[in-house]
Amino acid sequence: MSDRYAPVPEDRFVFGLWTVGNPGRDTWGGATRPVIAPDEIVRRLGDLGAHGVCFHDNDLIPFDATPADREAILGRFRKALTETGLRVTMATTNLAFHPAFKDGSFTANDPAVRRFAIAKSLRAIDLGAEVGASTYVFWGGREGAEIHASKPVGPALDRYREAIDFLADYVVDRGYGMRFAIEPKPNEPRGDLFLPTVGHALHFIETLARPEMVGVNPEVAHETMAGLNFVHAVGQALWANKLFHIDLNSQRIGRYDQDYRFGQEDIKELLFLVKLLEESGYDGPLHFDSHALRAESAEGVWDFARGSMRTYLILREKATRLAADPRYIALCAEAQVPELSLPTVPEGFSGEAVTRLLEEHHDPDALAARVVANERLDQLVTEHLLGTA
Amino acid sequence: MSDRYAPVPEDRFVFGLWTVGNPGRDTWGGATRPVIAPDEIVRRLGDLGAHGVCFHDNDLIPFDATPADREAILGRFRKALTETGLRVTMATTNLAFHPAFKDGSFTANDPAVRRFAIAKSLRAIDLGAEVGASTYVFWGGREGAEIHASKPVGPALDRYREAIDFLADYVVDRGYGMRFAIEPKPNEPRGDLFLPTVGHALHFIETLARPEMVGVNPEVAHETMAGLNFVHAVGQALWANKLFHIDLNSQRIGRYDQDYRFGQEDIKELLFLVKLLEESGYDGPLHFDSHALRAESAEGVWDFARGSMRTYLILREKATRLAADPRYIALCAEAQVPELSLPTVPEGFSGEAVTRLLEEHHDPDALAARVVANERLDQLVTEHLLGTA
Amino acid sequence: MSDRYAPVPEDRFVFGLWTVGNPGRDTWGGATRPVIAPDEIVRRLGDLGAHGVCFHDNDLIPFDATPADREAILGRFRKALTETGLRVTMATTNLAFHPAFKDGSFTANDPAVRRFAIAKSLRAIDLGAEVGASTYVFWGGREGAEIHASKPVGPALDRYREAIDFLADYVVDRGYGMRFAIEPKPNEPRGDLFLPTVGHALHFIETLARPEMVGVNPEVAHETMAGLNFVHAVGQALWANKLFHIDLNSQRIGRYDQDYRFGQEDIKELLFLVKLLEESGYDGPLHFDSHALRAESAEGVWDFARGSMRTYLILREKATRLAADPRYIALCAEAQVPELSLPTVPEGFSGEAVTRLLEEHHDPDALAARVVANERLDQLVTEHLLGTA
Amino acid sequence: MSDRYAPVPEDRFVFGLWTVGNPGRDTWGGATRPVIAPDEIVRRLGDLGAHGVCFHDNDLIPFDATPADREAILGRFRKALTETGLRVTMATTNLAFHPAFKDGSFTANDPAVRRFAIAKSLRAIDLGAEVGASTYVFWGGREGAEIHASKPVGPALDRYREAIDFLADYVVDRGYGMRFAIEPKPNEPRGDLFLPTVGHALHFIETLARPEMVGVNPEVAHETMAGLNFVHAVGQALWANKLFHIDLNSQRIGRYDQDYRFGQEDIKELLFLVKLLEESGYDGPLHFDSHALRAESAEGVWDFARGSMRTYLILREKATRLAADPRYIALCAEAQVPELSLPTVPEGFSGEAVTRLLEEHHDPDALAARVVANERLDQLVTEHLLGTA
Repeated sequence: MSDRYAPVPEDRFVFGLWTVGNPGRDTWGGATRPVIAPDEIVRRLGDLGAHGVCFHDNDLIPFDATPADREAILGRFRKALTETGLRVTMATTNLAFHPAFKDGSFTANDPAVRRFAIAKSLRAIDLGAEVGASTYVFWGGREGAEIHASKPVGPALDRYREAIDFLADYVVDRGYGMRFAIEPKPNEPRGDLFLPTVGHALHFIETLARPEMVGVNPEVAHETMAGLNFVHAVGQALWANKLFHIDLNSQRIGRYDQDYRFGQEDIKELLFLVKLLEESGYDGPLHFDSHALRAESAEGVWDFARGSMRTYLILREKATRLAADPRYIALCAEAQVPELSLPTVPEGFSGEAVTRLLEEHHDPDALAARVVANERLDQLVTEHLLGTA
Repeated sequence: MSDRYAPVPEDRFVFGLWTVGNPGRDTWGGATRPVIAPDEIVRRLGDLGAHGVCFHDNDLIPFDATPADREAILGRFRKALTETGLRVTMATTNLAFHPAFKDGSFTANDPAVRRFAIAKSLRAIDLGAEVGASTYVFWGGREGAEIHASKPVGPALDRYREAIDFLADYVVDRGYGMRFAIEPKPNEPRGDLFLPTVGHALHFIETLARPEMVGVNPEVAHETMAGLNFVHAVGQALWANKLFHIDLNSQRIGRYDQDYRFGQEDIKELLFLVKLLEESGYDGPLHFDSHALRAESAEGVWDFARGSMRTYLILREKATRLAADPRYIALCAEAQVPELSLPTVPEGFSGEAVTRLLEEHHDPDALAARVVANERLDQLVTEHLLGTA
Repeated sequence: MSDRYAPVPEDRFVFGLWTVGNPGRDTWGGATRPVIAPDEIVRRLGDLGAHGVCFHDNDLIPFDATPADREAILGRFRKALTETGLRVTMATTNLAFHPAFKDGSFTANDPAVRRFAIAKSLRAIDLGAEVGASTYVFWGGREGAEIHASKPVGPALDRYREAIDFLADYVVDRGYGMRFAIEPKPNEPRGDLFLPTVGHALHFIETLARPEMVGVNPEVAHETMAGLNFVHAVGQALWANKLFHIDLNSQRIGRYDQDYRFGQEDIKELLFLVKLLEESGYDGPLHFDSHALRAESAEGVWDFARGSMRTYLILREKATRLAADPRYIALCAEAQVPELSLPTVPEGFSGEAVTRLLEEHHDPDALAARVVANERLDQLVTEHLLGTA
Repeated sequence: MSDRYAPVPEDRFVFGLWTVGNPGRDTWGGATRPVIAPDEIVRRLGDLGAHGVCFHDNDLIPFDATPADREAILGRFRKALTETGLRVTMATTNLAFHPAFKDGSFTANDPAVRRFAIAKSLRAIDLGAEVGASTYVFWGGREGAEIHASKPVGPALDRYREAIDFLADYVVDRGYGMRFAIEPKPNEPRGDLFLPTVGHALHFIETLARPEMVGVNPEVAHETMAGLNFVHAVGQALWANKLFHIDLNSQRIGRYDQDYRFGQEDIKELLFLVKLLEESGYDGPLHFDSHALRAESAEGVWDFARGSMRTYLILREKATRLAADPRYIALCAEAQVPELSLPTVPEGFSGEAVTRLLEEHHDPDALAARVVANERLDQLVTEHLLGTA
């Protein structure tokens, strides 16, 4: 297979330590692969042409590590970063694994849990800052409920907001220059999670004390679980200038969180995702938040990583060719796509504009007869995807 | 069955003309029930104890009606309103049925269709104002796409916003005193709709020129289609002071839009919905946007309407009893529900607050051992629902 | 785009009269395209290289047609068949549209409706036989319920079986030589349909009086609505020698029945579907049970038809190349795919076989360490799909 | 809450050792509750009024137990059974947890894994027989795939059948008198599982060498994940005389496997499930295959168990009252439910029967006008459920 799709650091591909490091444990089964040390992950990713890594605090520093452990691990990690040139692009807090967070972290009913969650986040932000992370992600994996009676939504959102506001103040106070990115998810591991979709998170951000500092981190798998159109979700985030980070993977609708390799499912949606990202000027990390299939062996993890990046690059090339194909341009014109960017009432609101609208002739049947050429357009796209266009 | 649950107008129950008037047509089959004239609907609803009606422009005035037809119909409709005391609580525009809107209305690629859609809405707003509607709903039933290439999201949202802004200016200009309510839906009749969830709509509203004038109109069936928790959706809307209207019905997850009778599915979620609405002080219309099963006969439509209201009233009574049950209060206390309303860091952000948080002792294992009593709590709720508590 | 993918009749592509003839009506909107006469459809399909057509009785002969109408229509239809060389490959009965079937047809509670449904099917079988249909499809679009109380499952399945048995006897009695194919669907237009999946239908067939005469007609959209793997469904049907017909289209999981153009969604699953069909020796019709997007114009319907067939042919070519690619063969060998076809206990059951199994050494950890190469394998498949392998 | 719903052993309630013993571990988090010894579980269940227990081999005897461990554990377990009077109603094999089964067990590509899986099952069947289990369940938790290329369906089903046939021969050979029950599931922990629904399993059983020995074990959560109607699934299984076991719990559609307490979700469907089970004469175990919420503490597990049984008993009482309510009987009569049990063509097939059917007068419009009273019927059911009927 062609080397044309071999990644380089400039492609901005990033893997979480927990992604290539996933040992294959699930609810029904034990680990199928050995744990890999963070510095080893960095080196392997460096060999593959990645740009960076990211992590939860406890991916790097175990929950029970002593200060001495911490320094030793950090030393090895930094050394690997220096030797490979990889960067840390993002950090986050693990507020899901420890049973202390069984009823939530920022939205736990128990104030002591909430204080512990904030304290853990403060330390994790320090850790992220220490290794240069410029984005800090919040995924509320335990912020939700299975039963209505235990968790009223309004107070829960108050607490969620309070925590984010507090931590944003902290970042500003320390001068870390970080931005926050909220990662929505509809359910799992809780029955229902708060901020279930990109839309809910975008709205929540508008209620924060420092909305300009906070954006979203949409994940293919998470929106797809709810059957929502991921390109539309990213589109609304970009429209709001709030795409601060992105998690790339694959997922089937209406299933458990599968975190498949980017490209494994719904390749046409991914083509349009790549097209949208590339055309939008998004220049943040392209983070693969996914893992090798559980049946995969230790070495297969790197096949997974290699394939994720190759598929992105193939789709990037296809997106460019598609946009430049005169047939595509002509069919978009026939479907009147460019006219969607024109104001409907260019002069804006006024009594005269209303009068003109009401007086102008509309012929509904003629409008109904317009040719949209959508079947031809999508067939052309399909054949670009298949390489037969 | 007890008369204790017979509705009165003060209960604020409302039916759309298109709901009890639904003749049972679907994609695979013809109508099973005769069409009912608007004034006849008003009279029947009056007999049942309803508070009001609402309509799409063409539910009341046919698409091709002459001005004389319009006046005659309006006359009969007003007469029925007067005689029954029913109010018109909401109006909306049918921008879905006519094939002119096959590619969208406010977000159609064709500017002529968009102008027609705005003109039709202006006239429909006038009609709503004429009969006293104080809320105007926007459901973008054709605002979406089946294929990515034909409909870029950013420009589509620009056009959507332009239309709402224009119409809001119009309402202010005319002094109608109406508020707008946006009704989200994830898909159907388009493959994917814009503003697919309550979250997306809440965010969109924040980008409008007159955000204070616009709220949401969540519908049980629509959030449920995407498998989202409807109580959480309404909770976030109330938290944002944006619950301007509500559409009550029932639906199974991951299906076509079923618009079942309120209470037909997921009765426990509906109990908490009613509890939330009643405790929130929401005082808008309780609108049943649903219809009788297609197999139902002409007379069964009124059984459907009667049942919708009865079930609400039964759940309202249960919600009150549940809230007052000392066992419920004690279990909520055991689950620390009241503590969720307490600030986590009451003093707010400061360097000292950070220091205190970092220095205070957190015992994760002790926190993990906390009793939450969620199983007992939900069992008690279940037995309130079943009447065996 | 290359002519290599232009279809010929030998490719066995078939369209239902209701598919290309779909006028774009849906629950929320009116028709967007004119109705096309059956003979006109035949001629257009002939021009495109199709092999045949199929129909519901009322697609060809309107519900209220007089005997004279029937003969006139049939005459024109036969003439078009003769001139184009197209065949009628399948026929079926419309037991969904008329409101008489609102509560079911073969499983209606009202025996008079059931008798009408059987009588209508007898006449429709005659019609099918008259024009040479060798397969007769049964889709129970109204066989189901929205509420449990009205429709007990056991008696409903008794009636379903009775109807199929009766009609099978009729076909044998008349010497028509037809085979039956049952088409499962999980829901829509009823809340839940009986025989919701290929599995349920395969089981039902085993309970019939003439099981050898009856197979299944799986449809991509129908299994996909329930999130089931369509290739697995067809695989089980083939394994049982029960794939008597197939309905090709595209669909997103957990949605209303979309009936998209073959290839519009989940192209990787379709590649494996085509591979399975071609390798299995299935030689029945390849029926596109789908329709152009509602926004599409009259002429776009033929783009839809053309695209459906092209995509099948492209995937057929890819399936052949994939199967012959030495890298694919090597990766399948590494994943031990051929060993799945070897008996696990070749000698069959015996006390000695048990003893050998219990005495032989199993090293679970060594087994757990086996390399499966699934990530590399799926990446190679993905690149065949994308044309970059 | 009334003692009327306190269970007794005659109610046949059973819990798996893994259900009340579930420590709350999930993919994102560690255990929240201590492990409980099998004999302790038996004693606690005895106190609660349960009838029996069931287990996977490794729930009782750890994977790495020595023969001496095995005997010691078995001794304590038997002692607890004797003291409490509880029975072992079912046993099964854990073929999911050990990474050796990462690519399947009976359908693993590696024949050595398949042989290990059969050998492990032979030993587990012996263990089950030793403690008196009369039903043996097969859930193929790893029998499936995430990618098409690695796992052809036909050979996989051949291997599945081979394993079941072999083990059935073994049971007969040993004279154990056990019956087998196959438990379907659509997905998770594999991307897609074979035998995804009750329908697929019922069909598979018909292909076995000893079909009379094998039935199904439907689970509420598993059918519900795919959005299928569980009452219909159990109804088809009963219709086929194949309901050999049942797994009771609750689940929301289109989600990860939630295994909620029976009654937590969709209580109306559960009412009809209980009604169907009780009226059918099913006299097998009523097994709660579910677990307490992860946030629940050690003691809350028994609240979960108590609630599961109470809710069943409440629904059983409601089902009896509903069936006897003259209004229900009258509404069923109005909906013509009893007529569904009458043959449509009582005389069976004959040329004369065909003639009579074709000659008798059918008035479709009169049939369409029939009153079905479904709205009233479902409202009455709802009020029985709510206790206000």
